[in-house]
Amino acid sequence: MRVLGVDPGLTRCGLGVVDGAGGRTVRCVAVDVVRTPADAPIAERLLAVGAVVEDWIERYRPDVVAIERVFSQHNVRTVMGTAQASGVVALLAARAGLPVAFHTPSEVKAAVTGEGRAGKEQVTTMVTRLLKLAEAPRPADAADALALAICHCWRAPMLDRMAQAQARSAELARAHKARVAAAAAKAAAAKAAGEAS
Amino acid sequence: MRVLGVDPGLTRCGLGVVDGAGGRTVRCVAVDVVRTPADAPIAERLLAVGAVVEDWIERYRPDVVAIERVFSQHNVRTVMGTAQASGVVALLAARAGLPVAFHTPSEVKAAVTGEGRAGKEQVTTMVTRLLKLAEAPRPADAADALALAICHCWRAPMLDRMAQAQARSAELARAHKARVAAAAAKAAAAKAAGEAS
Repeated sequence: MRVLGVDPGLTRCGLGVVDGAGGRTVRCVAVDVVRTPADAPIAERLLAVGAVVEDWIERYRPDVVAIERVFSQHNVRTVMGTAQASGVVALLAARAGLPVAFHTPSEVKAAVTGEGRAGKEQVTTMVTRLLKLAEAPRPADAADALALAICHCWRAPMLDRMAQAQARSAELARAHKARVAAAAAKAAAAKAAGEAS
Repeated sequence: MRVLGVDPGLTRCGLGVVDGAGGRTVRCVAVDVVRTPADAPIAERLLAVGAVVEDWIERYRPDVVAIERVFSQHNVRTVMGTAQASGVVALLAARAGLPVAFHTPSEVKAAVTGEGRAGKEQVTTMVTRLLKLAEAPRPADAADALALAICHCWRAPMLDRMAQAQARSAELARAHKARVAAAAAKAAAAKAAGEAS
């Protein structure tokens, strides 16, 4: 499974492509950071980020796009731009027919370091080690994008199993409800027949 | 000037097209609300909103797209979806070659009611009156989209004048700096010549 991980942003948007070879084995295919000037209009910045994401989807042909789920942080202005960028990435992935998955920062940190509140440096160190990179990816947004892709490689089988279990339990609940309704209808019909006779 | 106003959102996204005929005269061309199911994946919801926005751009050929600027509100989850939708709208407008403008909720309210903290009902009443509509547009998101478009019709000339004034003052500042630098260079040259002689 090939995953394009995106750490969305306007000032810096991290992109990382990782191949999951089954088990815990992961391989780095590409990593980069797109930057857009802070004084450019928002629409132009989104256009620039969108163009690179589309180019990467076409060039690396991922099976899925994993995006960091944005939370409201201290800086409201920054978080809005980040959310706008994440919307653009999700749209372009969906338009390319690719499934889109969101993972929270703590899910990503927990996946690669075993600790949901790990620091940026710890994430970078683990990403470098897991992907057997000669150098640590810089800036942190590049490492985050790779961490996100690794997280998706490892979480996807579990998420699939959870979705299947949920679908099965919904099916069982539906069948149970139908049996209850049928029994109630039979009882009502028997009662009506008793009263009529 | 024809303006497509968008009150971004995933559950309800308001769309309104308004023609500004100069002065305060405005005319309603179209208004609607796109809804997407709350239980659908984010990417699918963005895809649905994006498809309608593109259709409206093609169908109504606006000169500009005005989008409500999203602020962090009480419900963080909602505001993220709203910001993602606004990013998608801005991207699609920019890809269609259209300028994109953002207005804050209070700028919109102040433009149509004269009061930045006006209530939703007051905005709907003024929009209905200004556009001489037979019925009040419902739900509020539809009225908000029209209010946004009206706000842009009225603010655009002022924003243009401000941008021109800023460009002029930046040009004057550049010219002044150049004169100062030239004078300093001349003085330094004269001093060097004096020392050399």
